[in-house]
Amino acid sequence: MEKIDGRRVRGDQSRRAVLQRAVQIASTDGLEGLSIGRLALEVSASKSGVATLFGSKEQLQLATVEAARTIFIEAVIAPARGQARGLARVAALARGWLDYSSSRVFEGGCFFLAAAAEFDSRPGTVRDAVAAIMDERDSYFAHAAAVAVERGELAGCDDAEQLAFEITALLDAANSRSLILGSEQPYARALAAVRSRLLHAGGDEAVLSAAGLSR
Amino acid sequence: MEKIDGRRVRGDQSRRAVLQRAVQIASTDGLEGLSIGRLALEVSASKSGVATLFGSKEQLQLATVEAARTIFIEAVIAPARGQARGLARVAALARGWLDYSSSRVFEGGCFFLAAAAEFDSRPGTVRDAVAAIMDERDSYFAHAAAVAVERGELAGCDDAEQLAFEITALLDAANSRSLILGSEQPYARALAAVRSRLLHAGGDEAVLSAAGLSR
Repeated sequence: MEKIDGRRVRGDQSRRAVLQRAVQIASTDGLEGLSIGRLALEVSASKSGVATLFGSKEQLQLATVEAARTIFIEAVIAPARGQARGLARVAALARGWLDYSSSRVFEGGCFFLAAAAEFDSRPGTVRDAVAAIMDERDSYFAHAAAVAVERGELAGCDDAEQLAFEITALLDAANSRSLILGSEQPYARALAAVRSRLLHAGGDEAVLSAAGLSR
Repeated sequence: MEKIDGRRVRGDQSRRAVLQRAVQIASTDGLEGLSIGRLALEVSASKSGVATLFGSKEQLQLATVEAARTIFIEAVIAPARGQARGLARVAALARGWLDYSSSRVFEGGCFFLAAAAEFDSRPGTVRDAVAAIMDERDSYFAHAAAVAVERGELAGCDDAEQLAFEITALLDAANSRSLILGSEQPYARALAAVRSRLLHAGGDEAVLSAAGLSR
């Protein structure tokens, strides 16, 4: 049996507690809005304690991005993996993403869209980490769409990557419009558009409705 | 004849020069990245001189948002107004917006998408100003689409606002994906999708191609 190091366990718990708060702050005020001093204040820890856990501000930002990725996977990717491969999974991904955004898993809406907008013109390791996760998400959607096409469930689609681009564009617009306009309507618009796009590509209406993409 | 006040003219020129730089800085580093000290350094003016022109940081941010609006109108809206009302104008708006984004009129891509992402969770006058301009743009697209529908140029469309939501979603995704992934491909994807969406809604292929939405 492995011997558990008490200090290390407490360190991991502290890290997790700080990161839970950090992802929320970053989603509303940006990753640049994170500071070791502010986090220490918010989680009632000492500044030197938080500094020991993360080191530099950049390391804190990178750890926050990674913590947000874990939350995103649990909220959107894992439930979709519970659906059958193919169209059902594409629909579940879209529906799950809309729910993840509208339920404000992150107080400031999708963490990665906020982080991408903040860092897309600032070269460095944080930008690279955010870009890699955005690419990972887009690739996951594209792969799911490609499987649906291969299985003959989207007979009208000859370019799964294009379809995935269009679906994620609609999802992202729902997030950004909802936040800046303070309205729920963009989610209904995005849902209707994704449903219509998948129907137009030959998707089965019953499969879409079962996955929550109903009229 | 109106008597021109020399000091006022110089003040207006200085304001314009500072704002030309401010919109670029804000598009890459955010409106929070603007400071009177940094701007003074970049335009080789004194800090007190720039402070006199703008007053507070918030007033500087609001003046920057307004200056960006003027640049956006000149780049996207004015050329589209030169096109016939209806489908030609909808297509010109979409094409013009993609060119405005991809040619980096603002170094950090669309100024307003960056500003909206930065301020959508921060209540206040800056957020309200950005929200009003986003709403203005979306309404302009929706109005142009409604005119095209009324003129019978989009016979397959029964909801111009929905159509406008979908088109602007695709345009915005091209901007954000291009920036974070460092690729031109999202512009080609968005152009193909907008063209396809308008064709599907009954748009005339010749009108779309004439406006630059060609395959």
